[in-house]
This record gives sequence, C-alpha cells and structure tokens, in this order.
Amino acid sequence: MLIGKACTFGGRIRSCVIKPLACFFTSSNRMAKSKFEYVRNFETDDTCLRNCYIVVRLDGRNFHKFAEQHHFAKPNDNRALSLMTRSARSVMEELEDIVVAYGQSDEFSFVFKRTSSWFKRRASKLMTHVASQFSSSYVFYWKEFFGEEPLLYPPGFDGRVVLYPSNRNLKDYLSWRQADCHINNLYNTVFWTLVQKGGLTTTQAEDRLKGTLAADKNEILFSEFDINYNNESALHRKGTTLIWVKRAEVITKPIKRPNEEEKVVTKSRMRRSVEAHHCDIIGEQFWEEHQDILEDDNC
Amino acid sequence: MLIGKACTFGGRIRSCVIKPLACFFTSSNRMAKSKFEYVRNFETDDTCLRNCYIVVRLDGRNFHKFAEQHHFAKPNDNRALSLMTRSARSVMEELEDIVVAYGQSDEFSFVFKRTSSWFKRRASKLMTHVASQFSSSYVFYWKEFFGEEPLLYPPGFDGRVVLYPSNRNLKDYLSWRQADCHINNLYNTVFWTLVQKGGLTTTQAEDRLKGTLAADKNEILFSEFDINYNNESALHRKGTTLIWVKRAEVITKPIKRPNEEEKVVTKSRMRRSVEAHHCDIIGEQFWEEHQDILEDDNC
Amino acid sequence: MLIGKACTFGGRIRSCVIKPLACFFTSSNRMAKSKFEYVRNFETDDTCLRNCYIVVRLDGRNFHKFAEQHHFAKPNDNRALSLMTRSARSVMEELEDIVVAYGQSDEFSFVFKRTSSWFKRRASKLMTHVASQFSSSYVFYWKEFFGEEPLLYPPGFDGRVVLYPSNRNLKDYLSWRQADCHINNLYNTVFWTLVQKGGLTTTQAEDRLKGTLAADKNEILFSEFDINYNNESALHRKGTTLIWVKRAEVITKPIKRPNEEEKVVTKSRMRRSVEAHHCDIIGEQFWEEHQDILEDDNC
Amino acid sequence: MLIGKACTFGGRIRSCVIKPLACFFTSSNRMAKSKFEYVRNFETDDTCLRNCYIVVRLDGRNFHKFAEQHHFAKPNDNRALSLMTRSARSVMEELEDIVVAYGQSDEFSFVFKRTSSWFKRRASKLMTHVASQFSSSYVFYWKEFFGEEPLLYPPGFDGRVVLYPSNRNLKDYLSWRQADCHINNLYNTVFWTLVQKGGLTTTQAEDRLKGTLAADKNEILFSEFDINYNNESALHRKGTTLIWVKRAEVITKPIKRPNEEEKVVTKSRMRRSVEAHHCDIIGEQFWEEHQDILEDDNC
Repeated sequence: MLIGKACTFGGRIRSCVIKPLACFFTSSNRMAKSKFEYVRNFETDDTCLRNCYIVVRLDGRNFHKFAEQHHFAKPNDNRALSLMTRSARSVMEELEDIVVAYGQSDEFSFVFKRTSSWFKRRASKLMTHVASQFSSSYVFYWKEFFGEEPLLYPPGFDGRVVLYPSNRNLKDYLSWRQADCHINNLYNTVFWTLVQKGGLTTTQAEDRLKGTLAADKNEILFSEFDINYNNESALHRKGTTLIWVKRAEVITKPIKRPNEEEKVVTKSRMRRSVEAHHCDIIGEQFWEEHQDILEDDNC
Repeated sequence: MLIGKACTFGGRIRSCVIKPLACFFTSSNRMAKSKFEYVRNFETDDTCLRNCYIVVRLDGRNFHKFAEQHHFAKPNDNRALSLMTRSARSVMEELEDIVVAYGQSDEFSFVFKRTSSWFKRRASKLMTHVASQFSSSYVFYWKEFFGEEPLLYPPGFDGRVVLYPSNRNLKDYLSWRQADCHINNLYNTVFWTLVQKGGLTTTQAEDRLKGTLAADKNEILFSEFDINYNNESALHRKGTTLIWVKRAEVITKPIKRPNEEEKVVTKSRMRRSVEAHHCDIIGEQFWEEHQDILEDDNC
Repeated sequence: MLIGKACTFGGRIRSCVIKPLACFFTSSNRMAKSKFEYVRNFETDDTCLRNCYIVVRLDGRNFHKFAEQHHFAKPNDNRALSLMTRSARSVMEELEDIVVAYGQSDEFSFVFKRTSSWFKRRASKLMTHVASQFSSSYVFYWKEFFGEEPLLYPPGFDGRVVLYPSNRNLKDYLSWRQADCHINNLYNTVFWTLVQKGGLTTTQAEDRLKGTLAADKNEILFSEFDINYNNESALHRKGTTLIWVKRAEVITKPIKRPNEEEKVVTKSRMRRSVEAHHCDIIGEQFWEEHQDILEDDNC
Repeated sequence: MLIGKACTFGGRIRSCVIKPLACFFTSSNRMAKSKFEYVRNFETDDTCLRNCYIVVRLDGRNFHKFAEQHHFAKPNDNRALSLMTRSARSVMEELEDIVVAYGQSDEFSFVFKRTSSWFKRRASKLMTHVASQFSSSYVFYWKEFFGEEPLLYPPGFDGRVVLYPSNRNLKDYLSWRQADCHINNLYNTVFWTLVQKGGLTTTQAEDRLKGTLAADKNEILFSEFDINYNNESALHRKGTTLIWVKRAEVITKPIKRPNEEEKVVTKSRMRRSVEAHHCDIIGEQFWEEHQDILEDDNC
C-alpha cells in the first residue's frame, strides 16, 4: 500500500513494463517516509530548567498485592529491600550523573546533579530510562535475592520528575522521604509486634494504635515487648542512601621487559563505586561528611 | 537527627526525664514530616491535552551492542522480535486504554485512545508505566524465546510521549514508523544477502549499496539472488501491529441442581484479547476493516 | 565594573600604559557579554501543539471598579463595548492568522487558525502580543468612544492560551462564552430593570431573583415591564463576533498615456476586512454560512 | 439556537403553548452552558517552579520603524527612554512582588521575588499582566513625555518568562542585559558621531566601524571628536534600574480636640516608592549596597 501510494508521487519512476515488481520499489519510498515526517514536529521540548537538581522518584505499582503474592515478610522483607537496592545500584552504575539515591519500602529516588546535561536534561528520557533500567534489573536480579521463591509476573514501577533549585530544597525533599520512612516503619513495627507477639488480630492492633503518638508507640514496644525501637535495624528505620565513593585500588601485575627478569609491579588507581548507608540524612552531619555530593548554591 | 530536630519544634513534648527514649518519638515526628512537605509543591502538572491521541514510543538503549552480545541473527532475529511483541502484549494487557500498538526492530509505539483518562492523562505516569512494564516483561519472558541463550545484563529502553490531535495525524505517525521499517528492512535484507550469500565483506556491501534506490535494491535481490522481496516475511517487511479483538468464547460446564440429574451447560461470553497483524497500515484498508480502533475526529 | 572584570579575561588586551582610558573598552566587552549569555538557556520552549486551534482570551483586571470610576451605564455601556470591539479589531488587523474573535462584557477571545505558524506558535509570544496590542489600543481609542469622559489611569488585561484539537471543541468553547454572555445579560437586564424601572433597591432586586429560572426572568420582564427580552439589543444578548470578509473594491482612476486622451479606468480588487456580527454562534447556521473560518478536522 | 438546542435537554420545560416566548428561556440555559464547560479542562497549568526568580522581559514590536515614524533622536531619545521608565514604574506600582526591573533601548525586564505567589505563579497571568499594564501605560503617558508629537498608532510589546534558580543566575541575567546595553550604545554613539559630526554617510560610518574593537571605538571618539565615552550620559551607558526604597515621610496636620486649641501634629510614616538608578549592576557593589533586593539562596 505504501508502495502503491508511492508510485503516484511523481518521483523518478523507472520503467515498469518488463519488471513490474520494480515499480513497487522506486525512489518514492523515501519520499513516502518524508511525507509523514512532519509528525515529528508534534514532539514537545521537556528540557529541565538548568541549575536545578533533577529528582526521579519510582514507586511500585500495586505492590501491596505483589508483596502478598510473593510472601514478603512483615513488617519488612529484607530480600525485597535488598533487591530494591540492587536495582537502584544498577541504575546508578548504568546512567550518568546520579549523585545520590534514597530508597525505602517500594520507592526509590534518584538525584541527578544540578549541572547535569545527561540526555540534554530531557525529562522524559531521564525518567523513562530510570524506570526501565530499574524494572529490568528487578526481574534480572530477583533470583539472587529470592532464591526458590518464583517471580509470578513482571512487576511495574511508575516514575515522576521533580526539580529542586537549591540545596536546602533538595535536602528537605530527602528529609521528607526519610521522615515518611520513619513514621511508617514505627507504625508497622508496633502493629506487627502486637499481631505477631501480642496475639492481637489485625483489627485489634489497628484499634489499639488509633490516635497514638510516636511516644506512645515506643512505650508499647518498650514496656510490653521489651523492644527498644532505636535498636531496631537501621535499614528499616532509616532506609537506604546510595552514594559514590572513590577508593584507591591496588593491582599487582607481573611485567617482563626484554633482557630483564620478570618483576611484579604494584599499581594503584582510583575507582568509583556505589556505597549503601543506612543513616540519618535529615541532620547536617551526613552532608558535612560527604560534601562532594552537592554542588554550591551560588553557581 | 530527625528526632533531635523534632524536639525543638515546640510541639506537645512529653517529659523526657525518666524515660529519655520517649523523647525521640514525640508527636513531633509528623510535624517534622509536615515541615518538609512543602517540597511536593515543586511537582509540575504534565496533563496531556484532552481529545488528543497519546503515543508512547519506546526505543532500545544501545541495542546494537546488545544484539551483538546476544548473537541476534542478521538481518532479523525472530526470537528478539517475538520477545518485543510478547512484552508489548504484556503492556497492553496490563495498562488500560491502549487501542493499538506498532513495533519494528527495537522500538514499539503504544497509542492511548484520545478520550482516555488513565492516570489523569499525566504524561510522566503514562510513559514510565509503559517503559517499566515493557522492560520487566522483556527480562521476564526472555527465556521463553531465547532458551539457552543467557541474558547477560538487564537491558534499558527510553520512552517519550507525543500527542496527535486528529486521526489523520495519528495514522501518519504510524505510517511514518512503518515506512521507516520498510526502508531499513529492504536495505538490511540486501546488505546481508550480499554478505551472507554474495560473499562480499561488509565494507564492500556498503559501497555497493551507496546511492541505490529502492528499485535498484530489489533488482539486486531479484536478478542476482532470485529473491522476490515481496515474498519475504511480512513480519520483517511490515512490522507488528497489535490490536484488541473481541471473540465469543464458548464454555461448557457441568451443573448439578438438587433433585436433578447433572447437566452440561454451554455458555458463551465475549472476551477481549490482543491480536498481532503484520500487514500494511499506511493505506486505508486496515483502518476500514478495523473501524473501532479510532474515535471520530468530530468529538 | 564590567570593564574591570573584562580585563582579566586574557583576551587581546592592548597596552594600557599611555591611554588608560582605552583599557576600559577592550575587545573583552563582547567576551564579558558572552560570559553571561548562558542565561539564555534557561528559557523554555512553549510551542503550542500543532494542528490545534490556539485561543487567547483576555479579561479586564478589576473592571468592576474601573466601570464604576468611569461611569459605565448599567447593565451595558455601549461606549465600553464598542471600545472593546475597536481594540479587538486592532488586534486582528495587526496580528496574523486570527480567524475569528468573540467578545462580551470585559473579555475577548481570539482564535488563531490551527495551522498557524505565527511566532513559531510560541504561546508566550502569542498571548503577550495580543494582550499588549489590545491594551495599547484600548487607551489609544478611548477618546473616540468616551469623548469628554477622561481615562483616569491605564487599565490592565490578563490573558491565557488554550488549545483545542477539533472543530467541535473550538465551537463548544465559543458556545460556552456565548452561553455565559446570555446568562449574565438576562440576569443583569432583569436586575437593573427592577432597580431602574421597578424602584427596587439592589438588595431587593437580588432577593427577588434568587432561585429564578430563565423562564421566570423573562416572565418578569414581559408581564411587569412589557419587555420582550428577545427584542433587546443583539449586541447585549449575543456579544460580538469578528470575522474576516473579502469584498471586491472598485477603484476608478484617471490614466493618461502619451498621445492619448486621459481616460478613467475602473479597477476591482479583493480586500479583506474585519466584520462584526451579533448573532448566535452556538447553532450550526453561523458556521454553515461562514465555512471558510474553520479548517477541516481531517488535516 | 442555544435555546432551540436547550429545549431538547429534557430539563424542566414549561408549557410553551400560550406564551411561546417563555420556551426560549427555560432552566436549560444553565444546562446548555454546563454542557460546554468541559472545554475548561483544556487549559493547562503553567505554574512557575517554586523558589526561582521569575523574570518577565518585554521587547518593543517593530520599534525600529516606530522610532522613525515618531522622530526619535539618534542614537538615544530621552523622551522615549523616560516614557519606557514611566511605564515600567506603573507596572511595578500596579503589580505585586517585583523587586527589581532593568530597562534599556526598547526592552524592560521585571524580576519577581523568588518566593512570590502572585497569581499563583502562573506564567501566563504574570507575563500578560506585565505586557498589558506596560502597553496601556505607554499610550497613557505618551503626551507627558512627547508633548506635541502625536502618537500615530497603538504600539505593541511582546513578552516572555524565564526562571532563574540562584542569585548568581539572576545577576548574570541582568549583567547580560547591561552588557548588551553597553555594546550597543558604544557602537551607536560612535556611529552617529561619525555621521552627525564627522559628515560621513551611514554606509561610510558602517564601513569605518567594521571589525573595530571597543578600544578602537573609544579611540575614535577621543582623538577625532574629543569625546570621553565615560563622561557620556549614564542613562545611555548603563540603562535604568528600578528598585523599591523605603523613606520616612513626615506629614504635618492640624488637630482640633474638643476643649482644646488647634494643634499642628507631625507624623512620620514609612513609604515605599520606586527609585531609578543608572549605575553599574554587573559588579558586586550595587548588590552589596542593596542587600534587600535578593533573597538568600539557601532558602
């Protein structure tokens, strides 16, 4: 049909008499294509404003049901959290210019440096690449963390892009996510302790916690179950922060020069690798210890 | 640290003297979080204009190298094309409102109906969901198509959103992609025939094809290799178009009512399923035969 | 200061010893400027989606107060409405590609044709030009309509851009504005008749109209004041629609050729001019009579 | 027509037999309007990113021709520059949250404070209001500056919005505009001196200046015309910067209390007013002297 149409364009059409077949493949193919190419102009420019941090946040789609179906432990499944972190590491290693990432539960945020020009700062490219790389990694590394637990179907994650113009805004964004982690984890810890150790039904546990403040929840853990929440796993309480670290790597290799005996030479080179932290990132300490993560506001 | 800060907010802080632990978990947790929540206002609205078709196109990232490393057959690898189609089907079945999808090579385009309100038409949600679901499916179904050929690393796909206001524009978009398929496949077919059957090096084949028109390429195939390009696989020449079809499904099931003998009952219900076509979509015939795909312009 | 800075750039700096003045104006001026030019990259692309009608709507800023201060007649001031129309005509004549405009009260909508490439379809350019031209015209032509009534201060109008992908959508937009005109004018007509002819206070008139339907309002006009609303001014009931009309213009001019007697020659040429209508644009009749206003959907 | 249609909606339609008129004004009017109101959903959100400076820049449309037609003096017309400044002052006084404005030639930039929530930060509202207020003011104040020189037609200005995330970026933007002012004014000053005092034609002057650097241009002025460019008008060399100043205003008014003699009372209150500067804003001095213009980056 393309071809039939193409013949009418009036391009350099060769004789069709003897080898009619040839008629179908004239120079008009390119013309046919170029006739449609105007549709490219409907694409819009979604370049992110310069000198702003670009945050891509992913969230699991229907992960409540996904967790049930794959027998996630409550309130936290370490296999699932480790797989999230492994997938996030894959994103950082594969895509350029991510300076810090923060994850908790079924979400992960990736921060591109404010001066990044990766993919010309096009929002759609940035977020789809992150969503794609994360999702394919999640399935790819599943077995490494879940072993014999089979993955029943391919999971989905949605993403969004948010821009932050100042270091203060960016840190407040990450603080917001970590505060969210804290509030949810404290609640879930008490809730499942009441159910698993206290013998309450889920409805009873829910009623018990209605209207309680953080202090009340700690009190329940401490006085009824002898649990000091502060001693609970930092992974669960603080989530996971991924940053780049540079380490000197020492390599030894044998060298054999002509007319010399073989020598073993030691070389040292700097290597960048992703490192996971489970510490507080709301206070200033973390940022003072890792001053190379953020760029200066006055740029 | 969150907590340390939180204590200074002046919220309802309880006595910290006897149980200092409690201090860390005052009502201020929520206050701490709410202090940061202003960062949500930095999110921008990216709602797609109403009454336009929403097209999400995915492209494989570095797929040239990926194809080499996974020993894709040249010029077309049917396992790879089938896996692309399987992944696209997964996207259509999982996400609502996609009325037609078209794929070729390492790309796939998904068309949401013009009146869709899926995810409130938010561009970021639409494209990341498609990119994510496609990517996780690609890894999930890999073994089904590639068997013993191992997947070496998780692949990536990038995506974009384009809006088309009229049926003409949308059809021209799909025509553009199919014309692209045709041009590339004709070139690749001749190129690899010259190399694989004609004994040319890749450089020689490249030189031979420089400046040739479609008719010339057909002539080479026909006169030198006795190949009629039109008889080549429609999958390769036309790509893959996925649409929804409704089919009456007949189910028979035994029914046993009290005080009655068991009877076999036949029921019929309509089921929607995804169907693959490898036909021309540039001409009007396809659209006339499937008039329910597109909505009326005058709406 | 520019200069002082510029000197440090290391450009081709000439000797500063003898004529220190010269130092201030080295080739570094352009370098200084180019150092800052990166700020242009912060501009974003706001191109309007192709093949959509572009509507720019203006609204008077604080026009309630403006009307009071300039003694506008109630419920409608013909001087003010005529000035609005005059300013809109100025916009249409000055800016390209506006195919129809509709105004009522203190608002005016301008519709650019769907294939317009005026100002590369950049939304900011389109709406600021319309807002600017309209506003300067409003002051410029004030005296022509208000005579001795002095303009006390420069008025303001705000604007917005909305895109409509189909003829149906665009007509519905204009219908929405005309339905708004109708509802407001019917209300205002009855309200001010009750006050001006019926002797009610404004509060009494408001109470009287609370909860009435259109039919009730007509009934009040008809039975109490012998007014048939349908016979009221079409300008007030329907607002003002501006379109382009082509008219043959006949010019006669004397021509004197050498060796001939002077002759009077009659020439005819087509001229485009803006024409005001005060008719219904919600029904199809207007659009059938003026089929050249809208372009075909299927383009 | 609205009405005809409305009648079919099935609303509470009253008897039409005796008073057919009433049929036209049923309760369906509002229904008719609400039927069209869906078109509001086609408006898009164009909220400016938080915590960024919002710059609106206006440029005169076809001002080269406008200047010719209104006999502007070359190279600078003080009446025109003063009118630009007067109009910009009107914008600052009328619209909230503009902290600084800078103008030169036929352009003016307005900077909204980074935390402004004026008009909910909607870009379209911000730029159209500025363009409208400036344009109506330009015509309104014309006579005040141009006296007997008549304004021939309403002039137009186009506008755009640009966001700047940091103080450095904003200062660089303003520096860019002032560097532009400097380069153009130096060129124009020499050019018109060569023409007006040196007796060159415009073509000769153009040739003479081709390829010259700033230093060369200064040299021409200094050695041939005894002009020290640095002593030229700061208004022309530096453009106009408008800022807010607070001044204590002393008011004396007579007060007469019962059973007391009339007294003259002196009161002092702070008043904000717009002040024009023609100084360098590229260096740090200006910003150090006016530290309240910009907000802290770390907010």
